[in-house]
Amino acid sequence: MTRSVLSTLATAALISLGHAAAAQPADQVGRSPWGPADEIGALNKITPASTLAVLGRIRSGQVYDLSVEYFVGMPSYYVLGQPRYQIWNVHTPQGTIVDDPNGLGKEKNSHVTYSGSAISMYVHTGTHIDALSHFGLGGLIYNGLRTDEHLGDRGWRRGGIEKFPPIIARGVLLDIARHKGVEVLPPSYGITVDDLEQAAAAQGVTLEDGDVVMVRTGRMQWFRDADRYMRDTPGLTRESANFLADRGAIVIGVDNISTDVGPSQEADNWVPVHSAMLSQRGVPIMQNVNLEQLAADRVHQFAWIGAPLKLRGADGAPMRPIALPIR
Amino acid sequence: MTRSVLSTLATAALISLGHAAAAQPADQVGRSPWGPADEIGALNKITPASTLAVLGRIRSGQVYDLSVEYFVGMPSYYVLGQPRYQIWNVHTPQGTIVDDPNGLGKEKNSHVTYSGSAISMYVHTGTHIDALSHFGLGGLIYNGLRTDEHLGDRGWRRGGIEKFPPIIARGVLLDIARHKGVEVLPPSYGITVDDLEQAAAAQGVTLEDGDVVMVRTGRMQWFRDADRYMRDTPGLTRESANFLADRGAIVIGVDNISTDVGPSQEADNWVPVHSAMLSQRGVPIMQNVNLEQLAADRVHQFAWIGAPLKLRGADGAPMRPIALPIR
Amino acid sequence: MTRSVLSTLATAALISLGHAAAAQPADQVGRSPWGPADEIGALNKITPASTLAVLGRIRSGQVYDLSVEYFVGMPSYYVLGQPRYQIWNVHTPQGTIVDDPNGLGKEKNSHVTYSGSAISMYVHTGTHIDALSHFGLGGLIYNGLRTDEHLGDRGWRRGGIEKFPPIIARGVLLDIARHKGVEVLPPSYGITVDDLEQAAAAQGVTLEDGDVVMVRTGRMQWFRDADRYMRDTPGLTRESANFLADRGAIVIGVDNISTDVGPSQEADNWVPVHSAMLSQRGVPIMQNVNLEQLAADRVHQFAWIGAPLKLRGADGAPMRPIALPIR
Amino acid sequence: MTRSVLSTLATAALISLGHAAAAQPADQVGRSPWGPADEIGALNKITPASTLAVLGRIRSGQVYDLSVEYFVGMPSYYVLGQPRYQIWNVHTPQGTIVDDPNGLGKEKNSHVTYSGSAISMYVHTGTHIDALSHFGLGGLIYNGLRTDEHLGDRGWRRGGIEKFPPIIARGVLLDIARHKGVEVLPPSYGITVDDLEQAAAAQGVTLEDGDVVMVRTGRMQWFRDADRYMRDTPGLTRESANFLADRGAIVIGVDNISTDVGPSQEADNWVPVHSAMLSQRGVPIMQNVNLEQLAADRVHQFAWIGAPLKLRGADGAPMRPIALPIR
Repeated sequence: MTRSVLSTLATAALISLGHAAAAQPADQVGRSPWGPADEIGALNKITPASTLAVLGRIRSGQVYDLSVEYFVGMPSYYVLGQPRYQIWNVHTPQGTIVDDPNGLGKEKNSHVTYSGSAISMYVHTGTHIDALSHFGLGGLIYNGLRTDEHLGDRGWRRGGIEKFPPIIARGVLLDIARHKGVEVLPPSYGITVDDLEQAAAAQGVTLEDGDVVMVRTGRMQWFRDADRYMRDTPGLTRESANFLADRGAIVIGVDNISTDVGPSQEADNWVPVHSAMLSQRGVPIMQNVNLEQLAADRVHQFAWIGAPLKLRGADGAPMRPIALPIR
Repeated sequence: MTRSVLSTLATAALISLGHAAAAQPADQVGRSPWGPADEIGALNKITPASTLAVLGRIRSGQVYDLSVEYFVGMPSYYVLGQPRYQIWNVHTPQGTIVDDPNGLGKEKNSHVTYSGSAISMYVHTGTHIDALSHFGLGGLIYNGLRTDEHLGDRGWRRGGIEKFPPIIARGVLLDIARHKGVEVLPPSYGITVDDLEQAAAAQGVTLEDGDVVMVRTGRMQWFRDADRYMRDTPGLTRESANFLADRGAIVIGVDNISTDVGPSQEADNWVPVHSAMLSQRGVPIMQNVNLEQLAADRVHQFAWIGAPLKLRGADGAPMRPIALPIR
Repeated sequence: MTRSVLSTLATAALISLGHAAAAQPADQVGRSPWGPADEIGALNKITPASTLAVLGRIRSGQVYDLSVEYFVGMPSYYVLGQPRYQIWNVHTPQGTIVDDPNGLGKEKNSHVTYSGSAISMYVHTGTHIDALSHFGLGGLIYNGLRTDEHLGDRGWRRGGIEKFPPIIARGVLLDIARHKGVEVLPPSYGITVDDLEQAAAAQGVTLEDGDVVMVRTGRMQWFRDADRYMRDTPGLTRESANFLADRGAIVIGVDNISTDVGPSQEADNWVPVHSAMLSQRGVPIMQNVNLEQLAADRVHQFAWIGAPLKLRGADGAPMRPIALPIR
Repeated sequence: MTRSVLSTLATAALISLGHAAAAQPADQVGRSPWGPADEIGALNKITPASTLAVLGRIRSGQVYDLSVEYFVGMPSYYVLGQPRYQIWNVHTPQGTIVDDPNGLGKEKNSHVTYSGSAISMYVHTGTHIDALSHFGLGGLIYNGLRTDEHLGDRGWRRGGIEKFPPIIARGVLLDIARHKGVEVLPPSYGITVDDLEQAAAAQGVTLEDGDVVMVRTGRMQWFRDADRYMRDTPGLTRESANFLADRGAIVIGVDNISTDVGPSQEADNWVPVHSAMLSQRGVPIMQNVNLEQLAADRVHQFAWIGAPLKLRGADGAPMRPIALPIR
C-alpha cells in the first residue's frame, strides 16, 4: 500500500474519530486520533505541505500584529488569586554606578550605560495560547494522561506547552460584532452556531479543515479598562466552539479574556469551552487576541503565524502571532 | 520629485550615515538616520515590500525552530545578581479541590480539572532580542535619549521592546564553527571579519542589506550544562559586528549567552558588541539562538520570522523565531 | 568628666536638637543628632539600660501579638503598581513524587513527604516598619544622604532596614477610636494633638522619652475587606505626628495602611507624616499594626518587642512585634 | 479536683506520651498529646507562666541578634530548583519623577523623594523556623493530617506557620564546635548524644523541659561563601535530635543550612532530623541561626524571644529571634 493511500485512510479515520469525539459524553476527556503518545491534538494537522501552501498564498507584506502589550495593571485572571503581570528594573544606569556589580568601577560603569528588566506573570496573561493540559476532566487531561502522574512542581512532565510546534496555517476572522451591527457584543452574550455561520457567509469566509479561527467580540476595545474588559465577557459556547472544531479548526482564538462566556452558562462546568476544546477535542484555544486592525481593514483570510514561548511544563504560554493577507 | 527618486536619495544618505556611524567615536551613542523620534534603528528597513519579497522566496514548509526551551536551571545571566528563570504552579487539580477558590465545591472542582502556572525571568533569558535601550553610553541610549528622562520604574517610557515590529526578513546562517572545522569555537574566541567573509564564501552566502544574520559558534551544544555554556564564551568582536552592520544587517543573533566574547577583550568596555550595535549602530542583537538544526541541514538562507513579546518598557524580550528555507 | 555627666550633657544637646529639628523648614531633611554616620535616628535612644528597665517592669506573661497575617488578597499598597503579596508551593508531596528532584525515586519520596512554599511581597506589606530611607525630600534622605549616591539596584547601600536593631522599649497605646466613642474613626479623619493628649489623659498614659507609640484608629476591624480598609484612611497629621516625636517617641505605629491620613490633606506633600517622621525627625513609622486585643483588654502600657527582618538594603521590612503588660 | 492536680496529671501523661512517641516506628507520623486539633506540637508548652518566669530572670539588656541578613547571593536551598532570595526596587526617586505614578507631576515628585523595594524568597531562607507541615511521612504530616486534604495551592489550610505563637522561652546554647576545640565541625559531622551531654556539662548548661535549644557547629563563619556554607554540612542526627526532644526541647535551632547532617547518613531518609522532629515529635526546628556573638561572649542561658512572620499556609517563615542573658 502506498503512502498516499495510507494517508487517505488515516484522514478518513480521523474524520470518523472527529465525529465520535464530538458525540462523546460531556464528562470524559477525549482520546487523540494521533495515538496514545500525542500531546498536541489538532496541531498535528500542521504539515510542511500545509505550511508551504498557505505561505504561497500570501498576497501582501502588510503584517497584522495580533498581540496586546504587557503592562502593569493590564487585564488578567486574578480573581482566583493568580499573580498579576509585573515588570521591574534589575539593572539601571544609576544603580550600576552605585553598586558596581561587575567590579569595573564608577568610571567604566558611567561610560557603559546598562539597564535590564525582569518580569513575572501567570502564563495565561495577555495574548496567549492554552496547552491541552490547562483543563481536564475527572483528574485526566486530553488523551487520558493522569494529572497525579504527570503534573510536577515545575509544571507538566507531559502535555506542556513546549511541545507545541510553531503554528503556520490559514487563519480566518469571523467578526461577530460587526455582523451583529454592534461595537461590542453584549455582556455575557453567547455566540451561537448561527452567528458563526451567518457571519462567515456575510464575510465571504468558508471554514476549512486546518484553519486557525479568530472570533471577534469587539471586547478588545475595552482592554485598557481592566475591570470593564473582564466582567461578563461575551464569548463562545460549548456548542459554537464544538461547531468550529467539527469544521476542522486547529486553534480557536477570541478577543476576550477567556474564550468562554463569563460567567458560565452551564451549571456544572465553569469553563465549558475550555473543557470541550482542550480536554475533549484537543483544540488549543487563545485569549486576548487583538483583532482590531484585521477587522478595521476587513481582512478575513490570512496566513496566521505564531509560536508560543517554549516554557517547559507550562499549561500555556504568551505569544505574539501575526497575520498576512492571502489570496 | 517622485517617490522613487526620494527613496534613492534617502538610501544614499543612509549609506553615507552608515559609514559615518561606523567611524564615529567609540564613546558616543549613534543618531538614527530615521530621525530624532526613532526607537527601533535598523528595523526601519523592514517594509511591506521587503516582507513580501522574502516570503515569496520560501521553497519549503519545513519550519526550523530557533528557540531554546525555558526551564529551571537553564543558563542565564545571573552573575550580577539577576533573577533566574522560575516556573511554578498557581493552580493544580488537587489544590483546586482543597481550596475551592471559585466556590463551586468539591464535586464540581473534581470534575473540571484545573492547572495553571506562572513564570518569572530576567527578560534577557533564553532566546531573546535586546531593545536598543539595553545598553547605552554616557547616560544616553541610541539616538540620544537620556536615561534619566526616559527610564522609569517599570522600564523605558521610550525605547522599550514593545516598539519593535514583527520581524520578517531574509535570514542567513554563517556557521563559523563548521567553517573552522570544530564542534565548538574555542573559549573566548573572537570571531574575525575574515572568519565571517570566508565562512560566507564557503557556505555560498552573500550578505545583503536588510538581512537578519545568524552567527554560529557551536556553543548551543553545551546549553544543558549551564556553567559550561556560560563561561568564556566565543563570540563576535566590535570589529566583526561592525562589519555585519556595515553590510546592512538589521539583526545579529548568536548561539551564545552574550553575542559578545566573554570576558571582554576591551579594557574600557565590558560589552563592546552591545555598545557598538545597540548604542551606536541601532542594530538589535540576539542571544541563545538555536541554530543547530539549520546547521545540521546546511540551510544558509531562509525567511526569518519572529516577534518579541510586547513587554511595555522592557529593554529586551523573549521570542521564538523560526526559519523557512528560501530559494 | 564622668560618663554620667557626659550623658546628661548629651541628653540636653539632644533635646535642644530635637526642638531645632521640629522647627526646621518643611522642605528639608533632618540632620541626626547622633552624627553624620547615623542611619537609624531615634532608635539610637535604645540602650541596654533602657531595655533592661522596661523588661524589668513586665507584670504578665500574656503575650499580645501585634501582627496581621499575610495572605493572597490582603490589603497592600498596589495603587501605584506595587506587587501584591503572593505565596506558592515550590515543593508538594505529590509533585516531589512525580518530579523526583532529589533523585531518590518514587518509593523514598513517597515515604518522606515534602512541602515547601515561597513568597513575594512589597516590603511595605502587612505589619511592617519603614526605614528612614523610605521617604526623603529633595533627593536626600534623613541625615543628608544622597539618593543618587546610596540607592543601588538592590536597595540602599546606606540607610537600609538591616541597620535597625531589635526594638525593645516601653510601648503605649493611644486608643483614639475608643476615646472618640466610635468603632472606627471617620474616613480621612486627621487625628489632632488634642485627640492624642486627651486620649492619653483619659487612658492614664503619660508619654515618655523613648516610647514606642501605638495609635489606634479602629480601622484594623476592616482588614479583611481590602478595598474598604485602604480607602480614605483616618490617620495622623504632620502636626500630631510631630507632637509625638516632640514627646520622644522612637517609633510610631498605626492600625491603618499608611500612618498618614488618606488622601493627603497637604497640597504639596502626598505623605506628610512620612516626610516629617522619616525624613526630618528620624522616627520610624509602622503600618497595619494590630492593636485590637490590646484595646479590648485596655492594656495601655507594655513592653514592646519587635525586630524587622534584616533585608539588606530594603527601605522597610515586615515584622511581628509583641507586647507584654508592664507595671 | 483542683487545676494544679489536673495539671500534674496532664504532665505525667505527656511524659508518658513523650516516651511513647520516641519509641514509635520510624515510618509513622506522631500524634499530638495536645489532641487531634493540634497544629503546633511542643510549642503548646509555652504558657503565660513559663513566659513570665523566663522574662523575670533577665539580667542584662544586652540584646543578641540571632538572625542573618538577607541579600542576593546568600546561601539558600536551591539545589532542588527553589527560587533564590531576590530584592528589587519598585519605586525609586528618579523613576517616580519619570513615571509620575501618583499624577502629582514632576515638581512634587522631585520634592518628596520616594523609594520602595520588594522581595521574593523560598520561606526556608535565612534565619527561619519550620512549621510541622514542612515534612511528613507517608502522605501525612504531624498529628495525622492528610496532605491531600489540607495542602492547597496557597499552602496549608491546616498546619501553616501562622498558627505558631510568638515564642518566649528559656534558651540554651550548646557550643559543640568550641567543646570539640575546632573553629567549625568537620564536613558532614554528625553530632552525637555524647557531644551534647558533654558540651552541656562543660558549659554549665542543664537542659530543662520547655527549652529552646541552640546548637552551634561553627558553620555560620562561612555564611558569606554560599557554596562552602552549604556543602557537606555538619549537623544533628536523628539520635541526637531525639535526645534533645526527650529532654523537653520545644525548638531546636542550628547554625547550618539544614539542622540535619548533609548528605543524609540514612539510606531511606534524606532528612532524618526533619522527619523525627517535625513529623514525629512535633518539635519545630530552625536553620541558619546566628550564634556567633553568643558563643564569643560565652552566653549559654538566655531568654529567647522570636516570632515567625504569619505567612498564612506557609510551611515555615523567616524570623529574627533575639536572646537576652538570664540569671
